[in-house]
Amino acid sequence: MTTAPGELTIHPLGGLGEIGLNCMALRTHDATVLIDCGLMFPEDYLFGVDVVIPRFEHILEQRDRIKAVVLTHGHEDHIGALPWLLPHVDVPVYGSDFTLALVAAKLYERGIEADLRPVKDGDRVEIGPFTFNFFPVCHSIIKGHALGIETPLGRVLHTGDFKIDRNPLDGHATDLEGIRRFSEPGVTLLMSDSTNVERDGFALTEREIKASLREVFDRARGRIIVTLFSSHIQRLQEIYDLAAACGRRVAISGRSLSRNIELARDLGYLRIPGGTPVEVEEIGGLKDEEVVLVVTGSQGEPLASLSRMSLDEHRSVRIKKGDLVLLSSRFIPGNVLAITKVINRLYKLGAEVLYEKVQAIHASGHAHREELRIMLETVRPKFFVPVHGEYRHLVKHSRLAVECGVAPERAFVLEDGQPITLLGQGGVRLEEAVPAERILVDGKGVGDVGQSVLKERQLLAGEGMVVLLLVVDQDTGEITLGPDIVSKGFIFEQQYAHLLEDAKCVVLEEVEEMGTANLKRLKERVRGALRRFFRRVLERDPVVVPLIIAL
Amino acid sequence: MTTAPGELTIHPLGGLGEIGLNCMALRTHDATVLIDCGLMFPEDYLFGVDVVIPRFEHILEQRDRIKAVVLTHGHEDHIGALPWLLPHVDVPVYGSDFTLALVAAKLYERGIEADLRPVKDGDRVEIGPFTFNFFPVCHSIIKGHALGIETPLGRVLHTGDFKIDRNPLDGHATDLEGIRRFSEPGVTLLMSDSTNVERDGFALTEREIKASLREVFDRARGRIIVTLFSSHIQRLQEIYDLAAACGRRVAISGRSLSRNIELARDLGYLRIPGGTPVEVEEIGGLKDEEVVLVVTGSQGEPLASLSRMSLDEHRSVRIKKGDLVLLSSRFIPGNVLAITKVINRLYKLGAEVLYEKVQAIHASGHAHREELRIMLETVRPKFFVPVHGEYRHLVKHSRLAVECGVAPERAFVLEDGQPITLLGQGGVRLEEAVPAERILVDGKGVGDVGQSVLKERQLLAGEGMVVLLLVVDQDTGEITLGPDIVSKGFIFEQQYAHLLEDAKCVVLEEVEEMGTANLKRLKERVRGALRRFFRRVLERDPVVVPLIIAL
Repeated sequence: MTTAPGELTIHPLGGLGEIGLNCMALRTHDATVLIDCGLMFPEDYLFGVDVVIPRFEHILEQRDRIKAVVLTHGHEDHIGALPWLLPHVDVPVYGSDFTLALVAAKLYERGIEADLRPVKDGDRVEIGPFTFNFFPVCHSIIKGHALGIETPLGRVLHTGDFKIDRNPLDGHATDLEGIRRFSEPGVTLLMSDSTNVERDGFALTEREIKASLREVFDRARGRIIVTLFSSHIQRLQEIYDLAAACGRRVAISGRSLSRNIELARDLGYLRIPGGTPVEVEEIGGLKDEEVVLVVTGSQGEPLASLSRMSLDEHRSVRIKKGDLVLLSSRFIPGNVLAITKVINRLYKLGAEVLYEKVQAIHASGHAHREELRIMLETVRPKFFVPVHGEYRHLVKHSRLAVECGVAPERAFVLEDGQPITLLGQGGVRLEEAVPAERILVDGKGVGDVGQSVLKERQLLAGEGMVVLLLVVDQDTGEITLGPDIVSKGFIFEQQYAHLLEDAKCVVLEEVEEMGTANLKRLKERVRGALRRFFRRVLERDPVVVPLIIAL
Repeated sequence: MTTAPGELTIHPLGGLGEIGLNCMALRTHDATVLIDCGLMFPEDYLFGVDVVIPRFEHILEQRDRIKAVVLTHGHEDHIGALPWLLPHVDVPVYGSDFTLALVAAKLYERGIEADLRPVKDGDRVEIGPFTFNFFPVCHSIIKGHALGIETPLGRVLHTGDFKIDRNPLDGHATDLEGIRRFSEPGVTLLMSDSTNVERDGFALTEREIKASLREVFDRARGRIIVTLFSSHIQRLQEIYDLAAACGRRVAISGRSLSRNIELARDLGYLRIPGGTPVEVEEIGGLKDEEVVLVVTGSQGEPLASLSRMSLDEHRSVRIKKGDLVLLSSRFIPGNVLAITKVINRLYKLGAEVLYEKVQAIHASGHAHREELRIMLETVRPKFFVPVHGEYRHLVKHSRLAVECGVAPERAFVLEDGQPITLLGQGGVRLEEAVPAERILVDGKGVGDVGQSVLKERQLLAGEGMVVLLLVVDQDTGEITLGPDIVSKGFIFEQQYAHLLEDAKCVVLEEVEEMGTANLKRLKERVRGALRRFFRRVLERDPVVVPLIIAL
């Protein structure tokens, strides 16, 4: 695929068809800029997979044309795949100072160097044939930007992840006025966050969340324990401020929280009121009503602080009657069972627990439907491509765009790997789709774990495995060792010793029947006979590995 | 533990601490009755487990005292464990005709015979020292009952699963008046459904759901495809009636739906309007606006009809633009990802999809908070034990009981395996807890899959396994075969041939270093060396099975 002079291609590598993996290439005939470079955490069926990243292969074929990566904000689904991209392409990475601080920490851990170039709100940066304007947006992480991009084919606006806080706490507004001015000459293309298109009205604002938290703090008589996404600096600020107002001191438990707090404070984005901080180990010396503990584990992660506390296994904090635990965070669908387990355990230890479902102590960072409408009506784009959503979100967002005046034939639902080229004069060309399968990362292996390995893991997970060992004399064909059976994850062997003996008899019968002349065929016969045997006596179907050798 | 004459013990075997597994023993000194006998479907981490059942061991120690099993309704979490109980104890099973029809089908599949005794609404049945009164309740399955139990220690009311439909469609009301009359002489103990204690107000009623469905049917121009729980006969009735009113014919796809429809129709609980039914294979001959397809798969089950349709793999139905799919069902938390995948795929095929989140086409079958309050205020019990809920639900429901006038010291939060004995004269005794771990069923194995087997399956699932085979001469100690490596679910072997060669060298180094005199120790060394090697080069940690033998 080539983009001719005078054309502009939008090539989604990830994020259009899932929440996560956000990565979009913007390309002219001789220059490509990547917007975001995110990962996705694997679903349960991806056994053993650590993270999922977009397939970069195609854009790396023309790696000399890549001019930069521009980041909208610092969430993992927007920056997390950089460690797998940057070793292959040496380009500057633009983003806010806080976004880049998160990137730097991530790259440092892996010993990767990069040319990080911080931008400030309102900055205007030329990158190849493009000029990027950085408009601050409100989101569940500080210092995010919408990108206003001046291109040879006119103006393009990429919202990044955003919501419109109608009544912002200090410094956390979405710069709608800037976006309106940018849009005045006319915007060719809008790409906008589709996450919450199914939610009516407006998202709650941080001011509303803070008021709700304030009520909770005012009522609380014992210790307050809060968990939240560790990059939600604005929410942390609210908690520090409320703690100070209530005469409570704040202790932090959890590595990612401590690190992000340090980053944000160093950059001046978090003001910790004097006298507030205290070490976790020291809270024992305070009265209960003087304590706020902020901890990791909002998703029920088994090794995080909150989960350990719920199991009474935290190194220094014991949950007790009177404790009030606040989950000031979303329940990500795949984590609901883990989170509710933690909540139930906390109740058993005597704590009271509040969460979004029972108290308004969390708000989404993504625009609801009316906010999306405001964005569409502010930008009034000629073309519209919904981004950041599962397929149904993209469909519904494109319909909303049509409601807001975009011509139906100019509102596209693109999927990962489906590039579209703007031709000028209002024309477009749908390019041939480019393979966009996701790449699975397992340890140091990138992309080698595919369907066959996953299928084997799934079978092993379901019923375990049985190794059968049999050695026959290569001259006489007589059995010299075995049959021996070793199993893992199949049965509790002590309890089923008789069954394993029977299984050996099944093997001996097969040997007797067909002899040992053709070992390959004997192996297949034995595998089949054992599987039938286990299915019959146990209704289980383990992976059977017959090792039959002539020696 | 013994219950003395003049005492009554409540012994929860399951359902108090989870949604599922409902089973409660009611015991005097010489008689036990079981209320419900349910299963739970396994969570993801229970690799290979088919179903989870309560531990019956303790009550089976005195199996001659068990007089009956009484069923409140026919959902799996109330009847599903019967096939594992009834072979051990020959007692009658009471329940409504529809409940018992479901039980009979289940037992027939497994060749189990049982003495099933149908009861009618309002029946009064003596069982040992108890007299059971069956009050109809409204729930997401027809013919459910609350149990009013006259015991030697006074009256006990067990609500079963219920909601209070204020404005019922024909014949589906909760008999609050009957319960009120039963309660008039005073109720010693109320046990009430806690599922929705966190939801304020009232659940939507079936009349409201039907009105909402009617709007959807009226607007629809193409085919309508509905999925729902296959035992929700009342909802099915609404769909048949609406279809008839709109001049549509109804086709069914899915075995459990067909079976339940047949059962309900045979018993007279489902009226299929004349001319409505049509075979799935015949809908091709109808116009789109004449079709309603009712299909299985509301939980995204991969083999059910809706999932197959979403993959365009259904044997006779192709989804097309204009189709309207209705998920008239709850999204069970563990299934949300599977369900949303199905929805996204349906959108890709051009269908429109409606579900609870975007349209009121489903209502919970469990009472919301205000309904629970009505039940408490109708019964006005002396003691209260919340049932059917996770731990936090039980805590919150017992608080609600206190709000409604139950004395705090008489509102108990019990867990599975924690019996409580009513002593008469208002006294109670908390019995020693009885082990109530759940029993895992995998194929024909009941209870043998425990922590060690599950742990192995988890390890196999995460990184696969590597079998190392090495044969040494028992006289000379020389290697006569190997090292050979077989792996499953570890790596794609073709791609990593070099790595497996290196791994063999690692083994040979160990053999060289320590010789073959002590094979047991050599095995341990080789296992350790291989694990370290794979961790270093791949950051993976498979299960390593070293087979080293002397021959």
